[in-house]
Amino acid sequence: MSVTAAKGFQAAGIAAGIKDNGTADLALVVNTGPRRAAAGVFTSNRVKAAPVQWSEQVLKDGTLSAVVLNSGGANACTGPKGFQDTHATAEKVAEVLGVGAIDVAVCSTGLIGVLLPMDKVLKGVETAAAALSEHGGEKAAIAIKTTDTVHKTSVVTRDGWTVGGMAKGAGMLAPGLATMLVVLTTDADLDSGTLDKALRAATKVTFDRVDSDGCMSTNDTVLLLASGASGITPGHDEFAEAVRAVCDDLGQQLIRDAEGASKDIKVEVVGAASEADAVEVGRSIARNNLLKCAIHGEDPNWGRVLSAIGTTNAVFEPDRLNVAINGVWVCKNGSVGEDREKVDMRYREVHIVADLAAGSETATIWTNDLTADYVHENSAYSS
Amino acid sequence: MSVTAAKGFQAAGIAAGIKDNGTADLALVVNTGPRRAAAGVFTSNRVKAAPVQWSEQVLKDGTLSAVVLNSGGANACTGPKGFQDTHATAEKVAEVLGVGAIDVAVCSTGLIGVLLPMDKVLKGVETAAAALSEHGGEKAAIAIKTTDTVHKTSVVTRDGWTVGGMAKGAGMLAPGLATMLVVLTTDADLDSGTLDKALRAATKVTFDRVDSDGCMSTNDTVLLLASGASGITPGHDEFAEAVRAVCDDLGQQLIRDAEGASKDIKVEVVGAASEADAVEVGRSIARNNLLKCAIHGEDPNWGRVLSAIGTTNAVFEPDRLNVAINGVWVCKNGSVGEDREKVDMRYREVHIVADLAAGSETATIWTNDLTADYVHENSAYSS
Repeated sequence: MSVTAAKGFQAAGIAAGIKDNGTADLALVVNTGPRRAAAGVFTSNRVKAAPVQWSEQVLKDGTLSAVVLNSGGANACTGPKGFQDTHATAEKVAEVLGVGAIDVAVCSTGLIGVLLPMDKVLKGVETAAAALSEHGGEKAAIAIKTTDTVHKTSVVTRDGWTVGGMAKGAGMLAPGLATMLVVLTTDADLDSGTLDKALRAATKVTFDRVDSDGCMSTNDTVLLLASGASGITPGHDEFAEAVRAVCDDLGQQLIRDAEGASKDIKVEVVGAASEADAVEVGRSIARNNLLKCAIHGEDPNWGRVLSAIGTTNAVFEPDRLNVAINGVWVCKNGSVGEDREKVDMRYREVHIVADLAAGSETATIWTNDLTADYVHENSAYSS
Repeated sequence: MSVTAAKGFQAAGIAAGIKDNGTADLALVVNTGPRRAAAGVFTSNRVKAAPVQWSEQVLKDGTLSAVVLNSGGANACTGPKGFQDTHATAEKVAEVLGVGAIDVAVCSTGLIGVLLPMDKVLKGVETAAAALSEHGGEKAAIAIKTTDTVHKTSVVTRDGWTVGGMAKGAGMLAPGLATMLVVLTTDADLDSGTLDKALRAATKVTFDRVDSDGCMSTNDTVLLLASGASGITPGHDEFAEAVRAVCDDLGQQLIRDAEGASKDIKVEVVGAASEADAVEVGRSIARNNLLKCAIHGEDPNWGRVLSAIGTTNAVFEPDRLNVAINGVWVCKNGSVGEDREKVDMRYREVHIVADLAAGSETATIWTNDLTADYVHENSAYSS
C-alpha cells in the first residue's frame, strides 16, 4: 500500500529505460488533496545532488503536489546541466498534471557523476502519469530500488487517518540529517509546520540512527505529504508518534536489506551522561570495521567495542565500562567479564549493550556486519 | 639491522610460548649507553592497555634502559591484574639486566581482553636477556609481528650517527597521536627533550597519516631511545629529518602489509585553506568503505570521493572541487571531467588527488583498499 494507503494520493511505478536492464526505474506520487501540505529533510552532505538542491527550494513554501523519483542515476556532481535536467523533469510533471513546477519535488538515486538520459526520463513521466492509481503505491516502491533486494513500505492506521510510506536504500547508509529516499504520505489534515516538526522528530531517532557503512549519500531525501483527505486533524503527539512508527519500521527494513549483510546489529548504549554521548559512542561502535568483521565471524570480540568507545569524547571511565553481547556481560568494569564462550551468535540478530556507567541516558544505533559480499557488491558497482 | 643499527644497543627476539604456534613472540631492546635518553608517543585512545599506562609513567623522566615487547596478547582491558603483570614483566627485565624497573618500557600486542601467560613471559625475559646481541635487531623485529606478513625495519645513517627502528602493525591502523608498536634507536648524543620534539614532529606527518581501517588501537606506542654512543650531537633539524625519514619508511611498510590489502592508496589533498582541512578531508576519503571497495574493483568511482569530501567541515565550494585518479582528472569543478575509461588501475599503487581549490595547503594520507581478505582475516581473528 505504501504511499497510497492514505486517502488523497495516487502513485505509479514504471520502466522508463533509465536502467539498462529494463526494470522499473521511475515513480510518481501525486497528492490529490484537498490539502497539499508537505515537509522534508535532506542530506547534510555538503556535496548535494541537483534534485536535493531543487527539492529544498520548492519545499520552502510548505507545499507539494507531486514527487517524481528515479533510480538508475543519482544526478549528483553533474554541474549546471544536472540541475537543468532536474528542473526540466519537474516542469514535465507539472505540465502533465496541470500543477506548478514549484510544487513538484524530484528525487534521484544511482551512480554519482553521470547525466540522466533525459529523453527517457521525460517520456517516462508521461507514461507514469497515465498509469497513476490509488493502488499504485507498491509499484512506486519497486521503481525506486537500486541495489535493494526488496522494496520497503510501511503503513500505520489510527482513528480515521493513516500514515504510509516507501523507502529505498541498501548502501551509502549513514545519514547526517535525513537519509536515503523516503516518501511518506498522510491523509491527516495538518499544516506544513506540524508535518515538519513531526518529521524532524521522527527522523532524528530513526533514520538518523541507521548506520550501515558510515558513508553519507549526496541524495538523501525524506518527504512527508499531507492530503487532508480524511478530514481529521489528529493531536500533535499522536501524529508524531505515527510518523515515528513508520520511519522506524522503514529504517529497520533498510538495515535488514543492507548490502551484503548477514547480521543485523543493534548497538544499545546505556548509562550515558547525555543522549549526545550515547549517540556518539553508538555511532563509533557501529562504524568499527574490525568489530563488524568479528560479528560476521560470530566472534564476540568485545575488545573492539572498547577500543571504539575509547576514541570518543563521551563521559566515561575506562575501568567502569561494561559490555554485553547477546545478553552475556563479556566485559565488566573495563576488564574480562563472563566467559565469551557463553555468547550464542548463530542468529541474524545481534544485540550489543555498551554501558558507560556515567548517567542514565541511552541511544540505539542500528548497523550490520561487514562481509565479503559487501566488498564484492561495492567493488563492481559502477563497472 | 633495525634497532641495533645505531651504536650502543643490543637486542633479541625469542619464542617464549605466548603464541600457541611456537613462533617468536618476545623481544628485548637494551640501551648500553653511555646516555639513556628516551621519548615516546602513545595512543590517544582513552581505553589504554596496561603496558601503555606503565610506559607513559616510566618515560616521564626521559630515561629508558630497556624495552620489552611481546606479541600474542595485548594486555588491554585486563584490569588491575593486567597492570600487575606489566609491572612484574618490567621488574623481571630490571632484575636480569641490573637496572631499575622504572627505566624499562613495556609494549604488548595481540588480542584485547586476555591475560598474558606470565610464567612464559617471565621465563622468556630470561631467555631473551641471554640472547642479547649487537646483531639482534632483526630477530627483535620478527618477534613483535602479529598478523604482519613481513617484519618492518628501517635505518638512516648520517655523518657518523644513525637512526634505526622496527615496527609492527597490519590492522587496527588509525593512530590518534602515535600508532602501532615502533621502537627507534639512535647513537646521536641528544637529551630527551630534543628526542621528544623530533619524535612528535615526525609521527605527526608519518604514522599519524597512515589510516588503514579507521580503527584506533589501545596499544599504540612509538619509542625513541638515544645511547649517545657515537659521541656526535647533530643539529636539531638534521636529526628531526632523519627521524622523520625512518618513521616515513616504516609507515609505508605498515600500509604495504595492511591486512588483506591489494592496493596501496595515496590520498593527496591539495588546494586546502589549512593543513588541518587537508588532513580532515584526506582522512574522510581514506575511511570511506565504499571508495575502498571501488578501488579494490579497479573502478575510478570519483563520486565516492566527492561524497566523502562533502561530509567534512573543510573550506570548499562543491562546484570547484577537482579529483584526479592516477593522473586523470575525472572530476572537474564538481562535475564530470575527463573520461573515467582513461584511468589505468592495474597496478598496486593508486594515487588520488583531491583539489579543494580553496588555498595552498596540502596533506597526504596513506590507506589501502577494502577486500574480502580483510573481512576474512578479521572475522576469524580471535577464534
